[in-house]
Amino acid sequence: MPLTTAELIDDGAAVALTWDDGTRARFHAIWLRDNAGDPGTRSADNGQRLITVLDISADVRLKNAAVTGGNALDMHFAPGDLRTTYDADWLRERIYDHSIDEPQGWVSSGITLWDGTFQDRVPSVRYHDATTNASMLAGWLRTVEQYGFAVMTGCPVESGDLLKVTGLFGFVRETNYGKWFDVRAEVNPNNLAYTNLGLQAHTDNPYRDPVPTLQILACLENTVEGGESMVVDGFAVARRVREENPGWFDLLAGHPARFSYDGSAGTCLQSKRPMIELGPDGEMIAIRFNNRSAAAFTDVPYDDMTDYYAAYRRFAELVEDPAMAVTFKLAPGETFIVDNTRVLHARTAFSGTGQRWLQGCYADKDGLRSTRKSLETQLREAAA
Amino acid sequence: MPLTTAELIDDGAAVALTWDDGTRARFHAIWLRDNAGDPGTRSADNGQRLITVLDISADVRLKNAAVTGGNALDMHFAPGDLRTTYDADWLRERIYDHSIDEPQGWVSSGITLWDGTFQDRVPSVRYHDATTNASMLAGWLRTVEQYGFAVMTGCPVESGDLLKVTGLFGFVRETNYGKWFDVRAEVNPNNLAYTNLGLQAHTDNPYRDPVPTLQILACLENTVEGGESMVVDGFAVARRVREENPGWFDLLAGHPARFSYDGSAGTCLQSKRPMIELGPDGEMIAIRFNNRSAAAFTDVPYDDMTDYYAAYRRFAELVEDPAMAVTFKLAPGETFIVDNTRVLHARTAFSGTGQRWLQGCYADKDGLRSTRKSLETQLREAAA
Repeated sequence: MPLTTAELIDDGAAVALTWDDGTRARFHAIWLRDNAGDPGTRSADNGQRLITVLDISADVRLKNAAVTGGNALDMHFAPGDLRTTYDADWLRERIYDHSIDEPQGWVSSGITLWDGTFQDRVPSVRYHDATTNASMLAGWLRTVEQYGFAVMTGCPVESGDLLKVTGLFGFVRETNYGKWFDVRAEVNPNNLAYTNLGLQAHTDNPYRDPVPTLQILACLENTVEGGESMVVDGFAVARRVREENPGWFDLLAGHPARFSYDGSAGTCLQSKRPMIELGPDGEMIAIRFNNRSAAAFTDVPYDDMTDYYAAYRRFAELVEDPAMAVTFKLAPGETFIVDNTRVLHARTAFSGTGQRWLQGCYADKDGLRSTRKSLETQLREAAA
Repeated sequence: MPLTTAELIDDGAAVALTWDDGTRARFHAIWLRDNAGDPGTRSADNGQRLITVLDISADVRLKNAAVTGGNALDMHFAPGDLRTTYDADWLRERIYDHSIDEPQGWVSSGITLWDGTFQDRVPSVRYHDATTNASMLAGWLRTVEQYGFAVMTGCPVESGDLLKVTGLFGFVRETNYGKWFDVRAEVNPNNLAYTNLGLQAHTDNPYRDPVPTLQILACLENTVEGGESMVVDGFAVARRVREENPGWFDLLAGHPARFSYDGSAGTCLQSKRPMIELGPDGEMIAIRFNNRSAAAFTDVPYDDMTDYYAAYRRFAELVEDPAMAVTFKLAPGETFIVDNTRVLHARTAFSGTGQRWLQGCYADKDGLRSTRKSLETQLREAAA
C-alpha cells in the first residue's frame, strides 16, 4: 500500500503518515531512529542491531520526512544527521498508533478456537508428504499454530522414530523422562500415565518451568479395548468460563496455581504459574491444567479461595463436556502433536488384554514457528 | 511447630487452626479435601492425585476436626465420609490466610539482589568437588538460584566438555545454534557474538519463547587483550528503575516488547514478551534485555511510547553503570552459569591478536532446581 503524505508533528518528535487507503498513523522519531535499517544501525550480515538505545539522543528529532515514489519514506534525523529510508509496507505492518479495547483473554488473529465440531476437520498430513513437500510441511505446521493440534499419518513405527517427526520442525526438549518416553501400562509406574487408568484431559508437565510447549505422541501399537485419545481446546474452555462468569476467569488468570511432581528418584519439580496465563496486554498465552500434579494452591487469598475453587470446578466441567472434545483412536503409524500451552489431551481407560504402546517427547513452539516462517519465505522466494 | 486448637467455622466450610506460637490460619474444607493425602486421593506409588476436582462435592464440609498429639490434625469430611490426617508442619508451610501487600516486582525470599560489590563474593566451586561431593554440588546449585550467577573452576577443556557441567544438574536445551556453540571471532558471523565487538550486557535469545532459562559459558582459550566478561543483576536494575520512577517500571512490565532473529538460513525467530515479566501476583519472574535482537515495539500505545523509551533508556543506563557490574576475565577451565531470566552478561571488545574461544550452551532452571532439591533430600535422609 503506497504512502501518500508525511507530516512532521510536535516539532519533529513524531511524524504523521497517510497511506493511499486513508489509513493514518503517527510514529515517534525515537522509535524510527531505533528501528532504522541503515548499515550503521543494523548489521548487513545478520540483521542484528549494532547500536544501543544509549547511542540515540534522548532529544532525537526528525528534520525532514518525505514520501518518495509512494513505497519509501526518507527520513532525516537530528542530532546525528542520519538520513535513511523506510519501506511503506514495513511501517504499515508495525503501526502502534491505535488502542486495544479487547477484554482480558483475547487471542491473536492467527488462532482459531474450536470445539467438538472440529472432529471432522482435524488437520492431517502424511509423513511422506511432510518429508518431501516443503509446502505441505509448512501448511501442516501452520495448522499446529492455528489450532494447537494436528495429526500425522503413515509415520515410521520403530522405537524412537517420533524423533524423525520432531526433527522436521524443531528440537527435542529432553527432561528427566528422557529424550522420549514410552507410554504403556507398567508395574510400579512412576507416573499414572504409565497405567491403564483413564486420564482426565490435561496439559503435560505444568510442574516444569518453562513448561514444554509442544508434545508429540506417536502410536506403535494399539490393540486394547478403550485407550482412546481426546483433545480439548483449553483456550476455548477459558473463553466459555469468561462468557459464563468473567470473575471466575479473572480468578484463574489472576492468581498463580501450584504444581509439583516428585514421583521418581532424583526428581523434585515444582512450579508456580496460573491456570490461565495472560500477557501484560491481556492476551491469552497459556493454559495449565492437570489434576494429577496440581499442588496445594497457596497464592490465592483466603477470601477468594471458595470462588477460585468454583472457577476451577467450572473449568474442569467444561474440559469434560463431550461437546468440547475431539475423540479418536490412534493406530500404529499415527502421531499427534499438541500445543501444550493450549490444548489438553486425555485418554480413556483401557483393558488389560492387547497392547497399547505410545511414545512421547517434548519440543518447543519457537522452533516450529521459525521453521514454518522460514519455509514460507523460501517458498515465496522460489515462486518469485 | 505443634498445633494447639482446631475450630470449625462457617458450618464446617472451613477450620481455624492455632499453632503453639499463636499463629492462626483458616483453611477451607474444599482445599483440605482436594489436598488430602489418603491412598484414595493420592497414589502411594508416585504421589500423583487420583481424583479430579469434580470428584469432590461442591458442598463438601468438615464434620469434625481434632488435633491429635499436636503434630497431626484428624479431619472428617461430608459428604463422602472421608477421614484422614494432615501433618501440622505440612499445613503450616501452606498457610494461605494472609494478604500480600508487596508492591509489583517483589522477589521470592530465596533471591538475593546484588550489585558490583558482589565482585569479591561470587560463588564458585571446583569441578572436581562438584562431581565428587553431593553437598558441594547442592550448595553451588543453590547459589545459582539465589544469585542467578556462579562460577565453576578446574573444568575439563576439551571441546564439548561443557556438557559435562550441564549434565551435573540438568538437560541441554538444543536450539538452531546446536547442542552447544562456539563463541569466537568468525568471518561472516551469523551473530554479533561471533565477532570481536564488545557486547552490551544482555539476556540471551529473548527472541525465543520459551526463552532458555540458563546459559553455561565455558572458556577453552583466552589470550586476547580485552574480552573480559561482565554480569549484571537484572532484577536489581529493575528495582532501581522502580525506586527512581515507579511509572517507568510499570511501563516496562506492563507492555510486551518484541524481539527477533533471522540471521541464519532456515531461522526466523520472533517473540512478544515484556522486558520485565511479572507473575499475576506481581512477583518479578523474568528480565529480557538485548539491544541486538530488540525488534520494533508495536504493543506500546502511541501515547505511552515516549515514556516507554525513557524507561528503556534508564534501564540501559543502569545496566551500563559500573557500580552494578561484576567483571572478570575467564581463563581456560573456568565456566560460568547465568540465570538467563535474571542476570545479564556482557563482554568487552577484544584485539585480533591471540585467541578467545568460549563454548556455550543452554539449559533450563526446572532441572537445576529439581536436582538441588533432590540432592538436599538425599543428604538429609543420609544424615538422619
